[in-house]
Amino acid sequence: MQLTQDKKKRGRPAKSGRDTTQTKAALITSGVEHFTEFGFASSGLDQILKKVSVPKGSFYYYFANKEAFGLAVIAHYDSYFSRKLDSHLKNTQLPVAQRLLSFVDDAKAGIEKYDFNRGCLVGNLEQEVAVLPDSHREKLFLVMQGWQGKISTHLKDICPNVKQDECESLAEFFWIGWEGAVSRCKLVRTTQPIDLFVTHFIKLIEK
Amino acid sequence: MQLTQDKKKRGRPAKSGRDTTQTKAALITSGVEHFTEFGFASSGLDQILKKVSVPKGSFYYYFANKEAFGLAVIAHYDSYFSRKLDSHLKNTQLPVAQRLLSFVDDAKAGIEKYDFNRGCLVGNLEQEVAVLPDSHREKLFLVMQGWQGKISTHLKDICPNVKQDECESLAEFFWIGWEGAVSRCKLVRTTQPIDLFVTHFIKLIEK
Repeated sequence: MQLTQDKKKRGRPAKSGRDTTQTKAALITSGVEHFTEFGFASSGLDQILKKVSVPKGSFYYYFANKEAFGLAVIAHYDSYFSRKLDSHLKNTQLPVAQRLLSFVDDAKAGIEKYDFNRGCLVGNLEQEVAVLPDSHREKLFLVMQGWQGKISTHLKDICPNVKQDECESLAEFFWIGWEGAVSRCKLVRTTQPIDLFVTHFIKLIEK
Repeated sequence: MQLTQDKKKRGRPAKSGRDTTQTKAALITSGVEHFTEFGFASSGLDQILKKVSVPKGSFYYYFANKEAFGLAVIAHYDSYFSRKLDSHLKNTQLPVAQRLLSFVDDAKAGIEKYDFNRGCLVGNLEQEVAVLPDSHREKLFLVMQGWQGKISTHLKDICPNVKQDECESLAEFFWIGWEGAVSRCKLVRTTQPIDLFVTHFIKLIEK
């Protein structure tokens, strides 16, 4: 996907029967689907538009340029994934020590649902960050900081005697390993790498 | 990069002054450089050929098709990386407990040398394995098995009391986290993620 720096709003809304908010949301959803499966560079804008029947001429009505589209896709994925994390880590129906495993089971089910073809959008884009605009790098960094904060808070809850900076370090370790495990799941087409990673991670925090 | 399944050998050797062995090696080196920086899908064959001044018509003299080229690039990288690993893990000039850290320092220097733009070829291709031919998936799996075997043997050397299957599991954990850490280095443009990962990994094996 070539990036352009067009700033001027142009194009016209798509005549699809959807209102403009729905069309913009459909474009973002299509972007998430393509980027989680193929990454940014391999995802053609034509395919993303075709999936939701939006003509190319209308794209620029919704997004100033492809860079802005990428940022909107990352923000949407962050919002979805942060809600998923919170729904497990703050689930008072579960004992606190089981909440991380509950998230892990949910994530594994998602990976299996898409037949091991879709990974983590943030992990995919991180891998190809050298060819993305700087704004994407900054956004991905902030998203990862947010996810790390959630795991760090959770670790402090389950291990109150562990110092704050150690919880933050372990949270960073968790996401580094998590992205490696999700990537390995694509290769071996099972969720065993996630199980193996999480088993050792739990041994480490119980240390 | 589109893949073709051409089986028939065609084309002619490049008139570059190099002999055919040198030209084939130059093509593979160019492939490694591009795939470690951009991955397979974002690496145009034209750029790979241009780097070593080989016309497109000559490419098929050296490789049956692009799939065969990809396999040759992976095999070359595996050979280079396995030698690097052995040069540290079997370095009798160093105490056995320092050899893994010696490899880590070497790898970090390589990442810095290329300004955090090049990652691990295997990690890059694993991330985009859904769009690669099945032969690449199988080859990447075997390569990773080989690297895991080397780390497993090393862990058995430094922790003789740890059972064989636990050494193998920890070795798999090492490479899962390693690929995540190398990817994170690209994002943050420092080697701090590798230091953080290795620090916690060592805590785990000392457990």
